[in-house]
Amino acid sequence: MSAKLDQLCINTIRTLAMDGVQKANSGHPGMPMGMADVAYVLWTRFLKHNPADPGWPNRDRFVLSAGHGSMLLYSLLHLTGYDLPLEELKRFRQWDSRTPGHPERGLTPGVETTTGPLGQGFANGVGMALAERFLAASFNQPDFPIFDHHTYAIVSDGDLMEGVSHEAASLAGHLGLGKIIYLYDDNEISIEGSTDITFTEDVPNRFRAYGWHVQEVDAYDVDGIEAAIRAAQEETERPSLIVCHSHIAYGSPNKQDTAGAHGAPLGEDEVRMTKEGLGWSPDAHFFIPDEALAVFRQAIEQGREAQAQWHGIFERYRAAYPAEAGLLETLWTGELPEGWSDALPTFSPGDGPIATRNASGTVLNALAPALPTLLGGSADLAPSNKTLLKESNDFQQGTTAGRNLRFGVREHAMGSILNGLALHGGVLPYGGTFLVFSDYMRPPVRLAAMMELPVVYVWTHDSVWIGEDGPTHQPIEQLAALRAIPNLVVIRPADATETAGAWRVALERRDGPTGLVLTRQKLPVLFETNRDPAETIARGAYVLADSSGIPDVLLIASGSEVHVALEARDLLAQKGVAVRVVSMPSWEIFDAQPASYRDSVLPPQVTARLAIEAGVTQGWTKYAGPAGDVIGLDHFGASAPYKTLMEKFGFTAEAVAERALQLLGKV
Amino acid sequence: MSAKLDQLCINTIRTLAMDGVQKANSGHPGMPMGMADVAYVLWTRFLKHNPADPGWPNRDRFVLSAGHGSMLLYSLLHLTGYDLPLEELKRFRQWDSRTPGHPERGLTPGVETTTGPLGQGFANGVGMALAERFLAASFNQPDFPIFDHHTYAIVSDGDLMEGVSHEAASLAGHLGLGKIIYLYDDNEISIEGSTDITFTEDVPNRFRAYGWHVQEVDAYDVDGIEAAIRAAQEETERPSLIVCHSHIAYGSPNKQDTAGAHGAPLGEDEVRMTKEGLGWSPDAHFFIPDEALAVFRQAIEQGREAQAQWHGIFERYRAAYPAEAGLLETLWTGELPEGWSDALPTFSPGDGPIATRNASGTVLNALAPALPTLLGGSADLAPSNKTLLKESNDFQQGTTAGRNLRFGVREHAMGSILNGLALHGGVLPYGGTFLVFSDYMRPPVRLAAMMELPVVYVWTHDSVWIGEDGPTHQPIEQLAALRAIPNLVVIRPADATETAGAWRVALERRDGPTGLVLTRQKLPVLFETNRDPAETIARGAYVLADSSGIPDVLLIASGSEVHVALEARDLLAQKGVAVRVVSMPSWEIFDAQPASYRDSVLPPQVTARLAIEAGVTQGWTKYAGPAGDVIGLDHFGASAPYKTLMEKFGFTAEAVAERALQLLGKV
Repeated sequence: MSAKLDQLCINTIRTLAMDGVQKANSGHPGMPMGMADVAYVLWTRFLKHNPADPGWPNRDRFVLSAGHGSMLLYSLLHLTGYDLPLEELKRFRQWDSRTPGHPERGLTPGVETTTGPLGQGFANGVGMALAERFLAASFNQPDFPIFDHHTYAIVSDGDLMEGVSHEAASLAGHLGLGKIIYLYDDNEISIEGSTDITFTEDVPNRFRAYGWHVQEVDAYDVDGIEAAIRAAQEETERPSLIVCHSHIAYGSPNKQDTAGAHGAPLGEDEVRMTKEGLGWSPDAHFFIPDEALAVFRQAIEQGREAQAQWHGIFERYRAAYPAEAGLLETLWTGELPEGWSDALPTFSPGDGPIATRNASGTVLNALAPALPTLLGGSADLAPSNKTLLKESNDFQQGTTAGRNLRFGVREHAMGSILNGLALHGGVLPYGGTFLVFSDYMRPPVRLAAMMELPVVYVWTHDSVWIGEDGPTHQPIEQLAALRAIPNLVVIRPADATETAGAWRVALERRDGPTGLVLTRQKLPVLFETNRDPAETIARGAYVLADSSGIPDVLLIASGSEVHVALEARDLLAQKGVAVRVVSMPSWEIFDAQPASYRDSVLPPQVTARLAIEAGVTQGWTKYAGPAGDVIGLDHFGASAPYKTLMEKFGFTAEAVAERALQLLGKV
Repeated sequence: MSAKLDQLCINTIRTLAMDGVQKANSGHPGMPMGMADVAYVLWTRFLKHNPADPGWPNRDRFVLSAGHGSMLLYSLLHLTGYDLPLEELKRFRQWDSRTPGHPERGLTPGVETTTGPLGQGFANGVGMALAERFLAASFNQPDFPIFDHHTYAIVSDGDLMEGVSHEAASLAGHLGLGKIIYLYDDNEISIEGSTDITFTEDVPNRFRAYGWHVQEVDAYDVDGIEAAIRAAQEETERPSLIVCHSHIAYGSPNKQDTAGAHGAPLGEDEVRMTKEGLGWSPDAHFFIPDEALAVFRQAIEQGREAQAQWHGIFERYRAAYPAEAGLLETLWTGELPEGWSDALPTFSPGDGPIATRNASGTVLNALAPALPTLLGGSADLAPSNKTLLKESNDFQQGTTAGRNLRFGVREHAMGSILNGLALHGGVLPYGGTFLVFSDYMRPPVRLAAMMELPVVYVWTHDSVWIGEDGPTHQPIEQLAALRAIPNLVVIRPADATETAGAWRVALERRDGPTGLVLTRQKLPVLFETNRDPAETIARGAYVLADSSGIPDVLLIASGSEVHVALEARDLLAQKGVAVRVVSMPSWEIFDAQPASYRDSVLPPQVTARLAIEAGVTQGWTKYAGPAGDVIGLDHFGASAPYKTLMEKFGFTAEAVAERALQLLGKV
């Protein structure tokens, strides 16, 4: 390959990005222009991928963590032969195009993850690399390297400023994820100007302190970049950061090295001048020289060959290890192994009261043998969240088949790494923390919902009833705030049986994340024998206890408050009030039921309705209705034993019965 | 001071903490036991404070970032003579005590900030130190060191794992906040066990990479600790981290260095054994030797003298600089300078359409001269958030009177630093980012609400109408999620005039944070002359345009959707439908109005109500009612020009009018 042809190829990327942004009159041209050389070297000399099959399990993963530079990725995908016609690049940022402002997984073939919110892609890559190591340790056999790929990313100043990058980098270094190779676009420009105004830390030494292998290169020295990536591949014990000293909007006579090139088009005149400087025709738009295209399109044949070779290995693996191969194929389709749910445990009142977090732990451990790639952990709260798989090892250097992930006190990275695990495929990830600390991980929860990833969150200590730890640890608004996220299903089970059902629903859900909201305190088991979850928990809400005729009042509750409602029902029965108790573990699931079912649970003619939940009342009016009422907590909690708090905050059977009588005009 | 007396004092702290946790049968004894020596040295040999006046402006700030070790702080506060009787220590974690599970600012004298959620205290301290430098540069004069104090903190492994500590540390190093002295409790234990399982980064070199001054000491070498703190004081250009090699539950024969001592009482037997080992009577509970108390209580006289000396300086300062002294005294009471709101600008339709983010920038710049300690910035989005004070400098090393804070892409630290600024007092802090990235800063927003801090958030790009940047940048659920936080007031103004009113409300609010939710796109100005904000924006919702008689239908909207409602009203008027348009910028404020006002705006007899907001519908049913409807977005957005999105998503006057007619049964 001549240096001249290299430059032609690089400038093809550069000019496509400029043209895409200019045509949209919106976007970020500077980053693609600055990193075109680095991306070219990676994509043409290293990246193992098959443009014809973006789902090939053993492809290298490439993450554009600096998602605002999306035109870089779209250019590469088009040039290397993915199903992304040039026409789509011309429709950058337009309605119904496959080239949205930031890369969106699922919309554009070859986009591994949705990026844009900074730091997320960085941590997603850690999850992908972790999945690769886990699957390799779990499934590879001598001479059968089914899983053996790198995870690359381009990361930016902004990514490295975000706290999540710190969390994920520290963990990646600890775990020795040596197949991570991140290319840092060190252009020293962010939106407000030079990074001198706020970001002067010594990034290389920071990453060395995390245990990373760090190199520095000139972002326009093609051979130097190649050598650095090669050295990074040879380093297998430590993740690699390659600091690429780059210039934003490289090649633009007036915009290079300026913040003005970050988030706005260069302008027609500047585009012309830049093209001229690059030896490009200023009148050419979206121009791809044939020689350049030929270079890029070698990826098609190379990818076909690479995947075919791998496929041959996999076929021989199937012959030798049919069960493992079969399991993998099932998982790659996004399905679960047949019969897995037979392993779900049952509970009965005779087991005594059990906290739903404990029930969750029992379920997880019962399911572990049936779901060999179920893996997860907690952000340093495993003993509290009950997330430990007792028969498995920790995932650590040297024990990468371990299924217990030790995330540390890193909720944000945990969320983003769970996304990376799910994005990689082949594994079933879960992660836990206290419900109140879901606040620390909202950005990746939102992205899991947006990307429709089957991630399960184990959020325990689900209410003010955690007691003594006080308001900093007592969730109040978290349920409402999580329910607000589109495509996140939140389930707050009322007992161990509902918890088993909730896990079933969560794992069967393959097109979005599910949050399990679980108690610290013990709760009685509701049923002697399991009711059919398909008729109860899986419908979001159901009639738990009923009156013989039409009820006078509905008590609607979730989680631990269901038990308060049941007690209140007894008190009200003594006063001749006919009460129906509705257990409503999930708004989202209930709302998705047909109106006929919803009306059968909440009969429209019964307007005396009292909703009870230990959290903000926001949104409950929808179910309680205008003639109803909501017992909630529209204020922060307090530090005290939880039974004291239940008295003080009006969550006793007596207080609920009183409010019900008020509703009925009987007080 | 003899070494023996030192040890007696230290063990007094240690045993008080053990006893407090044991009596509550809940809490974290290990941290106070491990860090008792360090805390003793700091509090008796360095900390400049006055137990009789916890509000003395020039006191050193002490932050217990590892808030779970609250008994350490309560012991110190009691011992040094704060208004915290021993009886309160015996009521640790009980209802209505002043010794809650985690320290709560406002509840316990001497507690500088509410901690427990890890990493927050670390970043709060950065805000406090920043406030000190700003106020010193702005108000000190030669020989008048009105502001001259240190900010100390005890930080834990958990604090340093959290991403927010990275963000705040990087910024503190960049800014050279040399009066920060943090003591790191490096006990190598977290809840899941040894930090070896997840946290093996090289913390000292990480902090050196941030530009910090780092020392390491034995946590039980009293002289070594003293020398290290002294050296840290002498280092004035860099923040200091003192790595204290400690042992959790130091002195406990069976629990020292175990995770079991982290979050659970030692147990009666272990407490007895530990006391015996410390030369304590195992039968003594909450025992304070007189000699030890005498040492600690010297703080009262020392504090009185220190404050009196400072007071003398301040009196002479007042004589020389009466205006500055008067301003400071006003600010210390939590009030704003008289007449400040006269500086609020007015807007009129003749100004042309103006984005509310731009109006906000105009307001900020107009207020800046009237509010000399108004300071803030953005998480690298100042040009978009319009947060820059044009007549001021950046706050940087050497220009610490600058009022423009460059937070970098660090939303989380920004939120926590804003809290630290407000906690310090004397300054009026604000911070901006895109509304969607409020998700990155929820933990400190929650704490600002809990601590009742007057912080203002400038959240711009407030809806899907940002357009091309696509779903990752389009807020959908953020309004609902923020409204769910108790004591956070959210205001989404509909034009420039409402924006000015919103700023007024936000700044006048002295007992909690306010989020301003502002558009990217331009909006017409609603009124020719300003209506009285006390009758409009300051009531949360008001009648913007009315019908002559009782309206047929109410259109209720916030922000940019108010304009769609107004256009729909015109269309409906053509069909003879009488429409009232209600602008509802703030649920929280409206809900706090008397029922008579609320009913005057939303007459109960008008049940045909249509709420319109570009976000999730959650919660709007409360205003729209059961016979009403909500036009919202219960799904993520898309990348396209915003006017296209308005068409596609049904936010046009035609679509709104159509839905209103449906409500009225006229379709």
